[in-house]
Amino acid sequence: MKLGRILRDSLEGAVPRLVVVQPERECVIDLATAEYQRLLHTGASEEAARRLASALYPASMSAAIAAGPTFLTAATYTASTSVEGGSALLSFEQVRWLAPLDPPIMRDCLAFEQHLRNSFKGDLVPPQALPQHYQMPLYYKGNPLTLIGHEQEVPWPGYTQRMDYELELGFVIGLAGKDLTPEQSKDYLFGVTIFNDFSARDIQLQEMMGLLGPAKGKDFATALGPWITTVEELDAHNLTMVARVNGEEWSHGSSSEMMWQVEEIIAYVSKGEGVQAGELIGSGTVGFGCGLELGKLLKPGDVVELEVEDIGILRNRMGTPSPAGWMPERRTAATVPAPE
Amino acid sequence: MKLGRILRDSLEGAVPRLVVVQPERECVIDLATAEYQRLLHTGASEEAARRLASALYPASMSAAIAAGPTFLTAATYTASTSVEGGSALLSFEQVRWLAPLDPPIMRDCLAFEQHLRNSFKGDLVPPQALPQHYQMPLYYKGNPLTLIGHEQEVPWPGYTQRMDYELELGFVIGLAGKDLTPEQSKDYLFGVTIFNDFSARDIQLQEMMGLLGPAKGKDFATALGPWITTVEELDAHNLTMVARVNGEEWSHGSSSEMMWQVEEIIAYVSKGEGVQAGELIGSGTVGFGCGLELGKLLKPGDVVELEVEDIGILRNRMGTPSPAGWMPERRTAATVPAPE
Repeated sequence: MKLGRILRDSLEGAVPRLVVVQPERECVIDLATAEYQRLLHTGASEEAARRLASALYPASMSAAIAAGPTFLTAATYTASTSVEGGSALLSFEQVRWLAPLDPPIMRDCLAFEQHLRNSFKGDLVPPQALPQHYQMPLYYKGNPLTLIGHEQEVPWPGYTQRMDYELELGFVIGLAGKDLTPEQSKDYLFGVTIFNDFSARDIQLQEMMGLLGPAKGKDFATALGPWITTVEELDAHNLTMVARVNGEEWSHGSSSEMMWQVEEIIAYVSKGEGVQAGELIGSGTVGFGCGLELGKLLKPGDVVELEVEDIGILRNRMGTPSPAGWMPERRTAATVPAPE
Repeated sequence: MKLGRILRDSLEGAVPRLVVVQPERECVIDLATAEYQRLLHTGASEEAARRLASALYPASMSAAIAAGPTFLTAATYTASTSVEGGSALLSFEQVRWLAPLDPPIMRDCLAFEQHLRNSFKGDLVPPQALPQHYQMPLYYKGNPLTLIGHEQEVPWPGYTQRMDYELELGFVIGLAGKDLTPEQSKDYLFGVTIFNDFSARDIQLQEMMGLLGPAKGKDFATALGPWITTVEELDAHNLTMVARVNGEEWSHGSSSEMMWQVEEIIAYVSKGEGVQAGELIGSGTVGFGCGLELGKLLKPGDVVELEVEDIGILRNRMGTPSPAGWMPERRTAATVPAPE
C-alpha cells in the first residue's frame, strides 16, 4: 500500500488529510472522507460517521500509525469500498502534497560507506572522524517540524551560499519498542519513503567542527515523499536510487550498498531510549548521492528529483535566498578566567 | 505562575494533567478538574463542562501553551476560583510528577563559557572545537520523548560506565516565530524550568568524535522540572543555580555567567527554521556544573538535586544499570573501493 498526506480546504482553513495513493491511476483516496461516506452508506448518523472517520484517520500520519495493525487493515478496507466519482477521489492534478509523515522525532544516519569515504576527507571533514562510523551506526537528529512534501518549494536561508541535496531513503517505524535486536527489528519497519536531506554546506561544516552535530546546516528544510510504500510492497535492501538536477542525472546507487542494514539501525536507535510508532530514520546519503561528492552546488530555481524503485519521484524546486537577517556577534575568548 | 504536569488515575489508565503549583502551600490545582467544577457551578451541563475543560487544559503542556495568552489568562482565573477541599486540589504527597513540558523539539546549547573551557580540553574534547562556540550559540538536538519528571528514577543504560549530571536551565518558548532579532525574542520566552542533562560520558565522547553530535550519550533520559516558572516571576538573567549529590554541594553558579543571552539563543534558533510554542531550549551546563569538570562520576542509587532560584528543586535518583544487550559489530573499512 502507498500512503500519503495532502492538504484540503475546509471551513477552518486548509487541513491535512491521509490518503491511499494509486500511482498507476494517478489518483488518491482521501481516507477520512471515504470512511465517512462508507459509514453513512451502512446507516451511521452523520455525527457518528464523522467521529469514527476522524478517529481512524486523523490529520497526523504518525498518530494513525500508532494505532497499530488496525490502521492498515482499516485503510485497505476503506480504500476498497471507496465509491468511484465521490468527493474522496482526487486526481494528482488536484493534490497539494505534504510530507507523508509528521514524525515525533527524526534521525539521519550515515550508513553508506562510499558517501562516508567521499565526504570525510582532508579538505572537507577531518578523516580522524571516520573510525567512529565503523564502530556503530551514528546519526544526527533533525528538525521534524520543517519537513516539506513533493512539489513544495525549498526555502533557501540567507545564511548559506553552498546549497546541496542528499539522496536518501526514509525508514518509517511502525511500532514502539526498546532494546531490540536486529532480528526483532524486522517487525518494526512500517514502510519506506524518499528523503532529501537539503544541506547548507558552509554552515554545516562550521557546526560539525563544534562537535554538537549539524543544525542550521540541515534544519531549514528536509523533503520527504511523495508517499510511503509499506514494507510488503518493496525490498528495502535492494532499491535503485537516482537523483536528477534539472533533468540531468547526477547520482545513481542502491540501498544494497548500505554498510549498516536497516534492522541494525533500528536496533541501535532503540537502545536505551526506544523507537516510537511513526518516527523517521534517514539512511544517510548513497555514495556519490550529493553535490559535495561531485564538486557541484545547487542554484536558486534548480529542480531536484529523487527517484527510488517501488516508491516514486520526489521533486522540489529550490527557492530564492532570504535576506541574511540578524547574525550573532562573535564573542571574545576568556571572558571568564581560564581553569587551573 | 508555576505550572506543572502530573499523572492521575482515570478509567482508562493513568493520564497526564496540567496543574498550577503553589509551593508555599505544598499543593497543586488540577486545572481540568477545577475548570470542570467551575463550569458546573455556573450552570454548564456535565458534558459541556468536560468538553470545555479538556479543550483548555489538554494532557499536553505544549499544546496548552500553543493556545497563546488565552492559556495563562484562563489558568489564572481557573486557579483563583478553585474550591478548597475539592478533588482538584492535591497535596505534594499525593502527586506523581511528570516533566512539566512535552516539547515538539528540544535543543541544548553550550552557553556558559566556563563549562566550555573546562570541557573542551586536550584529554577530553579537542580544543580545536572551541572557536566555533565563540562564533555562534551552537546546540545539539535532544530526544524530547525521554524527558522524565521530578522524583522519577533515571534509567541507566547498559552501555555506559561513566554517568554524569549537568546543571542547566530549560527555557520554554511561548510563541511561534521565525528569523527573530534578540530584541524581538524577549516576547517569546514563556518561562524557565530546571534541566538535568544526564550524560553517558564514554559513549558521548565517541559519538562527538564522529561529528554528528551526541545521541546515546544523552538521549536515554533528561530530567525536567519540578515545574515551569513563568517569566514575570523571575529574572532569567540572574538565577542562582546549585547541584547537590547525596546532599553534598558539587556545583554552584548563576545564569548571569552565560556568554550567550537567552534572547540571542532564541533569535539564533529561529533563524531559517523558526521556533514553536511549547518547545524547549537548554542553556548548557553552568561552569563546574557537572562531574566531568570536577573529576567525579555518579553511581547507581545516587540522588541528584538541582536547585534554581525562583523555581525550586529537581530531584532524581539514579537507577541500576540495564543489561548491555545487543551491540553493533564493528565494520571493516574499505568494504567499497576508495574514491580516486
